[in-house]
Amino acid sequence: MLLYDCEHAPSPRRVRIFAAEKGISLNTVQVDLAQGEQMSDEFRRRNPECTVPVLELEDGTCISEVLAICDYLEQTKLEPQLMGRNAKLRAQVLMWNAKIEQNGLAAVFEFFRNSAKGLRSRALTGPTDFDQIPEIAERGRQRGVLFFKRLDSHLDHRQFVAGESISIADITAFVAVDFAKRAKLDFLECAPNLKRWHSAVAARESAKA
Amino acid sequence: MLLYDCEHAPSPRRVRIFAAEKGISLNTVQVDLAQGEQMSDEFRRRNPECTVPVLELEDGTCISEVLAICDYLEQTKLEPQLMGRNAKLRAQVLMWNAKIEQNGLAAVFEFFRNSAKGLRSRALTGPTDFDQIPEIAERGRQRGVLFFKRLDSHLDHRQFVAGESISIADITAFVAVDFAKRAKLDFLECAPNLKRWHSAVAARESAKA
Repeated sequence: MLLYDCEHAPSPRRVRIFAAEKGISLNTVQVDLAQGEQMSDEFRRRNPECTVPVLELEDGTCISEVLAICDYLEQTKLEPQLMGRNAKLRAQVLMWNAKIEQNGLAAVFEFFRNSAKGLRSRALTGPTDFDQIPEIAERGRQRGVLFFKRLDSHLDHRQFVAGESISIADITAFVAVDFAKRAKLDFLECAPNLKRWHSAVAARESAKA
Repeated sequence: MLLYDCEHAPSPRRVRIFAAEKGISLNTVQVDLAQGEQMSDEFRRRNPECTVPVLELEDGTCISEVLAICDYLEQTKLEPQLMGRNAKLRAQVLMWNAKIEQNGLAAVFEFFRNSAKGLRSRALTGPTDFDQIPEIAERGRQRGVLFFKRLDSHLDHRQFVAGESISIADITAFVAVDFAKRAKLDFLECAPNLKRWHSAVAARESAKA
């Protein structure tokens, strides 16, 4: 298996941390997003949506989208389970992962891609250029703050986002908070539960992946 | 099990079609979104993100988010499998489902929620009001058209979006195309493969759910 990766991008980081928690070592190829390598014909054949990460299997099949890649790793190496060990727990993990993706991580993406100077015509990932819409940046900031406040309440007396051990939901939230910090959004301020949880996840070996 | 539903909303329709394909009959409670019933304290206890669908299990656990609910139904009644019968197929189904959610369905939501007269302060679902941003409506239209063109190419010589039988990916795409039509966006025009595929899915008994 080969992971098409980009070291500083948040989405492939989710896969790298997930693989590290499972003890799966992945060979990686760096895709230079700044140079537009994801737009090349060669890369488009792997993922027409021109995004990383992409996991290329032994038979050449290419899997893109973080959840799909993580699910594949979970199915092919069961332990430690990072997506819930029964139907109910799995549903809770997937629920939280979706909420965090849509309301947390997506909000940070909205802020970052609509305000970064180097991305004026790249407000969305993908094969087509779209101009920034400054109002979306401000909305992203606001809804990110509101969502992570709700997550802070949820984490009161809880060690992990869903269930009794780390899951993909923790990984998604952790990467979102770190990505926000890089974009100069601090969700940990006035969020004591989120801060405690973040320190605990950051102290794991996998956080370096 | 009890499904908190809204008959005319696209997200719960995905769950209803999924359940119908699996032969699972779900008791439903209608949530009146137009009257803001999703904002009530009672509903917030079930889903603080104030969205439908929500599946309430026998023990009172509430699962929101379409993918999480469908995964729960898939785990509790295996056949017919709608999320892929092995790790690789499952990854492909989840990959396509994510692509369609993010680039197809989300684009229609952007268009609809930022242009509908009745939703001026409800440009996003969720507990907080956000004003419409008209530029997002136009961007949603454009990226919807572009994505469904790519899906049209993908469906050339293919009966289903992923694998050899219907999956959650087909259901997501089908609901997105129908929702777009209601919002006066026609993605089937000049998309012969998508049109053929859509007719075949529409002819299934589950499409009435």
